[in-house]
Amino acid sequence: MEDLSVAEVEVPQLEAGQVLVRNTHHSVDAALRLRLDPTSPPGYLPAFEVGEGLAGLAVGTVLESRLAGIEVGDIVQHARGYRGLAVVDGDSAALGGAGRLARLDPALAPPEVHLGLLGGTGLTAWAGIVLVASVRAGETVWVSAAAGAVGSVAAQLAKARGCRVVGSAGSPDKVTYLRDVLGLDAAFDYHDGLGVQLDEAAPEGVDVYFDNVGGAHLEAALDSLRPFGRVALCGAISGYNGDPPRGPANLFLATAKNLTIRGFRAGAFADRADEARVELAGLWRAGRVTLELSTYSGLDEAPRAIVDLLAGRTLGKCVVVD
Amino acid sequence: MEDLSVAEVEVPQLEAGQVLVRNTHHSVDAALRLRLDPTSPPGYLPAFEVGEGLAGLAVGTVLESRLAGIEVGDIVQHARGYRGLAVVDGDSAALGGAGRLARLDPALAPPEVHLGLLGGTGLTAWAGIVLVASVRAGETVWVSAAAGAVGSVAAQLAKARGCRVVGSAGSPDKVTYLRDVLGLDAAFDYHDGLGVQLDEAAPEGVDVYFDNVGGAHLEAALDSLRPFGRVALCGAISGYNGDPPRGPANLFLATAKNLTIRGFRAGAFADRADEARVELAGLWRAGRVTLELSTYSGLDEAPRAIVDLLAGRTLGKCVVVD
Repeated sequence: MEDLSVAEVEVPQLEAGQVLVRNTHHSVDAALRLRLDPTSPPGYLPAFEVGEGLAGLAVGTVLESRLAGIEVGDIVQHARGYRGLAVVDGDSAALGGAGRLARLDPALAPPEVHLGLLGGTGLTAWAGIVLVASVRAGETVWVSAAAGAVGSVAAQLAKARGCRVVGSAGSPDKVTYLRDVLGLDAAFDYHDGLGVQLDEAAPEGVDVYFDNVGGAHLEAALDSLRPFGRVALCGAISGYNGDPPRGPANLFLATAKNLTIRGFRAGAFADRADEARVELAGLWRAGRVTLELSTYSGLDEAPRAIVDLLAGRTLGKCVVVD
Repeated sequence: MEDLSVAEVEVPQLEAGQVLVRNTHHSVDAALRLRLDPTSPPGYLPAFEVGEGLAGLAVGTVLESRLAGIEVGDIVQHARGYRGLAVVDGDSAALGGAGRLARLDPALAPPEVHLGLLGGTGLTAWAGIVLVASVRAGETVWVSAAAGAVGSVAAQLAKARGCRVVGSAGSPDKVTYLRDVLGLDAAFDYHDGLGVQLDEAAPEGVDVYFDNVGGAHLEAALDSLRPFGRVALCGAISGYNGDPPRGPANLFLATAKNLTIRGFRAGAFADRADEARVELAGLWRAGRVTLELSTYSGLDEAPRAIVDLLAGRTLGKCVVVD
């Protein structure tokens, strides 16, 4: 936490094509951690430089606009979070497309729902379940870190599409949440053992694994997956915090069982974001998909939010409100 | 080699639906090694029991038939190799479909070509290049163990489909073979280092990796693969011979770069075998695809053939002729 601080800087003059946004909601995502290493994984977003401001998905109110189609007072999402006032380029495809500047409809949902369920979090979960894993009704789906932001949406979406859903998480409270609030078919705490509990939860094996964790979780999935099963590699939080990353020693099972393992980032599916938003907004209005919030107040609290998220102390979507 | 021996057994009476085949050509495949461990990988073909005969793809002449559509004197392929005389069930889907009993056309090609290029070897290479990796003209494709049976067909097929093909192998002679005989665009000996040579051979990265080796080869591929690249996981010979298997420590790159890693076995594509055979037979007649033979004489030599193959001492397709 002492590695991050809030700094005061001058707000530059707006250039043509830019807007000035008073940020109100900042998205706290595990993948931020990847950019806090001197070398971010090649092919991923670049590492933050020491002294540079963080950046992430955010929602805010437009204070000033030199961009056609965006008016003062509009509520917008963009990728210049982690600052009180943000100068945003209208044509920036930041965060690989998922963070493009866009007007939000405040009548549709409150800002935190736009940021989470209808924003990058929801698009990531939707792309993984619908496009990457292509779940079918009747299949058994395991979602790890299922009490997290992306995981909880992925799990509920798979349920809504007629799957039997197993969720895992890192505390008894989260397991209770998965079972009683989200209504998953089975849930377990991974600290009590992966393989045995997964076998109990899915005795016939799983058809799809939605991976937010990597490492031993992925190995357990490869053991359990049925022939022609699929893995959506969304994240690998077990390797984010300086632990040496570990590849699955049983990867040959992919050949033995004709498995498909597909890594993805939401930005690759930015052209399907509207479709995702329509489905998720419909499910949200119908009360079939919810997204718990872990809220932190003020940018001063952002470092604590990031640390808590990586330590597994948050539930659902982690947001800094400022 | 002392772990295998040739035994004399009674030939049982044929039952209805069976044929008796005098085997003439036995396919020596690296994956046999997997079944010579007490526990074959779960989901894969079962391990051979001690005292049980080996089995594998073979071609032979029918001596006796109690199966409609198969006549005495027919040349057939099946999965009951590693015995002089084989009793073959007409409805057996042995080896997951790739080893189903089928009549061959001796006018089309000699038996060793049916066994290799037009048999399980060719189907495996074709399925990996065409269906699993879906190579497109102009893409850069890396094939490991490219002087081996499946690898050499995969590499030539990718060339025939308009790709730039890089091949790796385990000796200077094989590298010369890849460059001068198969005409690959680049080739290197993996003993001289993987990453650096791959970067030299494909400075812009590869679009597709056809993996016959696993381990460090797969790690080098993940480093090199361009966004939206694909891996066809065909085999992992580096882990077959008792070496502890090692998963790729850089698997997160699959997420960072939107990569698809797909394991497969030819049996899963048995319904496309005719299509594969038509394309491969056409390329073979046109001299655009060849398959070198490493021939061993007599079943007594089969153990040496298996050991030589796993030690990297064979080139192309390894066959026991008896």
